[in-house]
Amino acid sequence: MKLARLGAPGEEIPVLIDESGTAFDLRSVVPDITGEHLGPDSLAKIRQAAGGSTLPVLEGSADLRVGSSIARAGSILCIGQNYAAHAAESGAEPPEVPILFFKAANTLTGPNDPVAIPRRATKTDWEVELGIVIGTRALYLDSPEQAREHIAGFVTADDLSERDFQLAESGGQWSKGKCAPDFSPLGPWLVTADEVDPKNLALRSWVNGEPRQDSSTADMIFDVDHIVWHLSQYLALDPGDVILTGTPQGVALSGRFPYLGAGDVVEVEIEGLGRQRTVMSAPLGAS
Amino acid sequence: MKLARLGAPGEEIPVLIDESGTAFDLRSVVPDITGEHLGPDSLAKIRQAAGGSTLPVLEGSADLRVGSSIARAGSILCIGQNYAAHAAESGAEPPEVPILFFKAANTLTGPNDPVAIPRRATKTDWEVELGIVIGTRALYLDSPEQAREHIAGFVTADDLSERDFQLAESGGQWSKGKCAPDFSPLGPWLVTADEVDPKNLALRSWVNGEPRQDSSTADMIFDVDHIVWHLSQYLALDPGDVILTGTPQGVALSGRFPYLGAGDVVEVEIEGLGRQRTVMSAPLGAS
Repeated sequence: MKLARLGAPGEEIPVLIDESGTAFDLRSVVPDITGEHLGPDSLAKIRQAAGGSTLPVLEGSADLRVGSSIARAGSILCIGQNYAAHAAESGAEPPEVPILFFKAANTLTGPNDPVAIPRRATKTDWEVELGIVIGTRALYLDSPEQAREHIAGFVTADDLSERDFQLAESGGQWSKGKCAPDFSPLGPWLVTADEVDPKNLALRSWVNGEPRQDSSTADMIFDVDHIVWHLSQYLALDPGDVILTGTPQGVALSGRFPYLGAGDVVEVEIEGLGRQRTVMSAPLGAS
Repeated sequence: MKLARLGAPGEEIPVLIDESGTAFDLRSVVPDITGEHLGPDSLAKIRQAAGGSTLPVLEGSADLRVGSSIARAGSILCIGQNYAAHAAESGAEPPEVPILFFKAANTLTGPNDPVAIPRRATKTDWEVELGIVIGTRALYLDSPEQAREHIAGFVTADDLSERDFQLAESGGQWSKGKCAPDFSPLGPWLVTADEVDPKNLALRSWVNGEPRQDSSTADMIFDVDHIVWHLSQYLALDPGDVILTGTPQGVALSGRFPYLGAGDVVEVEIEGLGRQRTVMSAPLGAS
């Protein structure tokens, strides 16, 4: 199933999108797409309602803004340098274990919303990433094979980053460059895990229509199942947590492309999970 | 005002505690202590209700468990190495800017709840820290002087840490050692900002009754106002976000004390903000 949230910020309506692109209003089944409503029981209820053809079509949905695919995240966990060629372009060796850092939970925004360049920023960068949305608690999993049952679905994400904030003004901890307002566009859809094989999905990005990243999740050093299993040895992943699984080569940090400025258009896309279009805007409050 | 949450996990009742220690039931004013109910309007309503002597006493409160002082955090932001002597005992130079990392939001627990040693852990450590709870959004503050108006209150926190997870298995990013279940005991009280001068509060910790940390927030490298102002240049601090402001010297990482094991009792206390007592228990699922 493709789940989405349509409407103005804070007023999004949860919908199911069928194969023809028609949006069905889910409010009779779930109030919103959140961790509380992503467990197997909730997804079964949505599936049942969809099968029973009882869901009303959401009229005018094509004209509605697309919101972040989940209303809020418990935490946004990120895996760093999970593609060898990106580690290399960042000046690092491929990691021996998954590297964990966090984005602030309040950075989620819609896949086509404008995003302000942070004040003082000179190195704002894009990162297309496969996002995992957790559906049931995962703690101390016995093996990577157990990971999939804890995943509600997958989503296209852009892990927007400011490299000086991340690397030069940070004391070595990366989060300071990852958390500016709206730095985590998520969507357009949450595609449930039963319909996604995350092992070999094309993921790509463009700036002003020119290609930047072009890779596959097959190039991940640590795959989706390994990441969920590994993290569960250190912490509890809870429903509504989002894991961003790392980005492939082709970002501005490589030195091969200019950083982003106001007016630049970033597009990111993952095979089967949809495409985002983000217009970068002037810093908030800038004259 | 002293606000607290009393009752079984997930069933906590918000209360106001007066100078005599009597707990008044706040449910007629706010449903729970969360970011949504920590803004100036909510605090004014609580203050008005308290002044009007209309709040009912919560009978039997002395027998109730104390919950985390807020029901959930938006994000838990942490400042690393913010006391020079702790930076030194950790083998680091004092930082030139505040170092930001995150704990997972689901690590909050009550101030007297048992906490399980993580599986495989051999270096579980304590860190008494002054916690800041945000009351209104702070973004791009003009000066540290503006910080205080965005703070709802202050709270005693223990930033429990597993040092091998943080430093040896992490690829250099600290969060992996900071996020085990229940690793962020918070409380017993949220004391509103109008009643706290955070510039010179004694903060101390003990293990099995023996003193460990004994310092003052006056020893912070970056003080509360500076931290809030500084972070607001990089991200939006939102109501219900918690900032842990760093720990002073006297942790096990120094090599001067043994790490924690099952049965050890950790106590942490901050002047005016109350004391925690945490019994470390065996790893979850361990036979």
